[in-house]
Amino acid sequence: MATPDHPFAGDPVFDLHVGGKMEVRSRVALADRNDLSLAYTPGVARVCEAIAADAALTQYYTWVPRTVAVVTDGTAVLGLGDIGPAAAMPVMEGKAVLFKEFGGVEAVPICLATTEVEEIIATVARLAPSFGGINLEDISAPRCFEIEARLKEMLDIPVFHDDQHGTAVVALAALTNALTLTGRDPAGTRVVISGAGAAGVAVARILLNAGVGDIAVVDRQGVLNSRRPDLTPVKKALAVDTADRHDRHGSLADVMAGADVYLGVSGGTVPEEVVASMAGDAIVFALANPTPEVPVEIAHRHARIVATGRSDYPNQINNVLAFPGVFRGALDVRASAITEGMKLAASVAIAGSIPPEELGPEYVVPSVFNRDVAPAVAAAVSSAAEASGVARRRQAPQRV
Amino acid sequence: MATPDHPFAGDPVFDLHVGGKMEVRSRVALADRNDLSLAYTPGVARVCEAIAADAALTQYYTWVPRTVAVVTDGTAVLGLGDIGPAAAMPVMEGKAVLFKEFGGVEAVPICLATTEVEEIIATVARLAPSFGGINLEDISAPRCFEIEARLKEMLDIPVFHDDQHGTAVVALAALTNALTLTGRDPAGTRVVISGAGAAGVAVARILLNAGVGDIAVVDRQGVLNSRRPDLTPVKKALAVDTADRHDRHGSLADVMAGADVYLGVSGGTVPEEVVASMAGDAIVFALANPTPEVPVEIAHRHARIVATGRSDYPNQINNVLAFPGVFRGALDVRASAITEGMKLAASVAIAGSIPPEELGPEYVVPSVFNRDVAPAVAAAVSSAAEASGVARRRQAPQRV
Repeated sequence: MATPDHPFAGDPVFDLHVGGKMEVRSRVALADRNDLSLAYTPGVARVCEAIAADAALTQYYTWVPRTVAVVTDGTAVLGLGDIGPAAAMPVMEGKAVLFKEFGGVEAVPICLATTEVEEIIATVARLAPSFGGINLEDISAPRCFEIEARLKEMLDIPVFHDDQHGTAVVALAALTNALTLTGRDPAGTRVVISGAGAAGVAVARILLNAGVGDIAVVDRQGVLNSRRPDLTPVKKALAVDTADRHDRHGSLADVMAGADVYLGVSGGTVPEEVVASMAGDAIVFALANPTPEVPVEIAHRHARIVATGRSDYPNQINNVLAFPGVFRGALDVRASAITEGMKLAASVAIAGSIPPEELGPEYVVPSVFNRDVAPAVAAAVSSAAEASGVARRRQAPQRV
Repeated sequence: MATPDHPFAGDPVFDLHVGGKMEVRSRVALADRNDLSLAYTPGVARVCEAIAADAALTQYYTWVPRTVAVVTDGTAVLGLGDIGPAAAMPVMEGKAVLFKEFGGVEAVPICLATTEVEEIIATVARLAPSFGGINLEDISAPRCFEIEARLKEMLDIPVFHDDQHGTAVVALAALTNALTLTGRDPAGTRVVISGAGAAGVAVARILLNAGVGDIAVVDRQGVLNSRRPDLTPVKKALAVDTADRHDRHGSLADVMAGADVYLGVSGGTVPEEVVASMAGDAIVFALANPTPEVPVEIAHRHARIVATGRSDYPNQINNVLAFPGVFRGALDVRASAITEGMKLAASVAIAGSIPPEELGPEYVVPSVFNRDVAPAVAAAVSSAAEASGVARRRQAPQRV
């Protein structure tokens, strides 16, 4: 359906985007004076007064506890890099509609006209009374680490940088199933993570929390190891918890020899002979988009299980399996934060969405269209929030 | 319909507010892989790249040009005063759904956790790439004047403090019809405005722009007159353009004697003998809510035309007659600002929504449920934007 009134008319992607992908709707009738006197003045004044007297009532009588801000500064959008806040909006709108579609979470895209860490932190903190959670999105590393850490400290609502933790949760879910299929236990598994940006750091951290015993993280200069003088504080801390433990160092090729798992979140290309040097029954997750670090055909020559970020191959590692259910579960119990336990629980729920008898090398991660995943993730995240003491209520009172 | 799971169950106002009054919806299908590849990755990347290359394309392919932020700091909410951002949310949600219902404008409520002028300005400026316009709401005077003025200077999208200009536009519309009915012309009319806050200042300014010849603005200390040493810069400037011109001074009672129009936006009470001292065929607009400055029964004893802010009397001066159409009209032509001309045009359109033969003392302002008003206002505002050189396109390309 060509619409002749925009510059790229006839291109299905652009035709679909005309006017944007989302809208706001009223949930209440506004047809007559009685409606208006309930939803607006004079009735609304009583709701305002009640909340002014007891701020906790905002949880019942506003959309705040059901609503997440999807906040970016446009510095690391998809694989496109620093394209700015205006150009980031189509991705944020897409994220917002996925939040609603898969998690029943209201989401508002916010693209900020600043890339200064302090300004981003101050701005998001000032927006916080309007939202039940903050989903940070497409903010470049290492700025994203400080922004998230500081906001988590300041705010009593969940703050979650999806490029880090969404990717980590889904990658762990797929890896869990892949380890089961290949008869490995996490503690005895040797993993190489290529990439020490937002996703790489978070993947390494969640694998550590999941008990993976031997991890080496590699950036462009080689294995993160405390002996390297060039590491940022985040990378240095990660080195201590990963390669230092087994004194691994050198290049990607050095640590790939004999490794059980390659997990690429970096871009770049891994030479075939390096892939070939991995252990038997190797697992290759080449998540760079649109071009996986190991071409799928080559990966299959040397690995038993292959996953990518692409929708046109089996085993797509896609954040949409995580973020809608993670926030749904957090909001349902008014969680004050998203803890490590909640992320692990989300990962277990995603992995468990595939019945054991259906698991196979081409099916270690569920389809993004499996509508059972988000509710299962939400329930697991709510329970984990209660277990970790960050839940502030047992049940959601909202109409949904 | 009582819902037993909230603290004020059974109260119709609170029942209606459970879960909040608004939601986000997708305008695109997300049912299968093809849908997702158009609305999200990989398709969306091409839209982002196109906007990165030409920022003007944001106008075609995002919801930004259709969307307004409704921003408050919670310092002057309804007649309740400084109740804070959390308690302000029900009003902002109400405003947002009225924007959509009456103007087809998407609106997002933003309640800020700061009351510092500089912080509010910086925050709103950083949010600007996400919105096609900024509706400031319920921010106390005199802070609201500086916040609006500075943001108008900084941003190339409309910034409109509704408590000022929405009230002013509708009050002028009603007054225009009331002057017609009583055979007065604006230049020869003597007006007393009681209240020099956000609404009072804006009403005085729009009446000046509409050619009203003799205005006295009164605050708690009496008539604003340059001889007074206690005036803020905003009040001082207003004094020069109003009471100074006719050397009016003294108390409310002093200037009410012989006045044609009383326009109250202040709260407080006007003694009956003061109302009785007005000219014949007097016009009394007592807009304080919920208690008009002049009780309606008393006003009718001494005035030919009476208007209030209440929905249970004839002639309700309600901002909802203005803001949806004003922003719809501004967004439709991508206006870079809302000019004085656009506000006057909105007022003329509202006044003109009542056919001359239907005008009467109890019908000087149209019903808020007259669905012809917002489109008429929008068309008038779009034309005025083009006339005043702030329009950046002739027609809206969006699907609506």
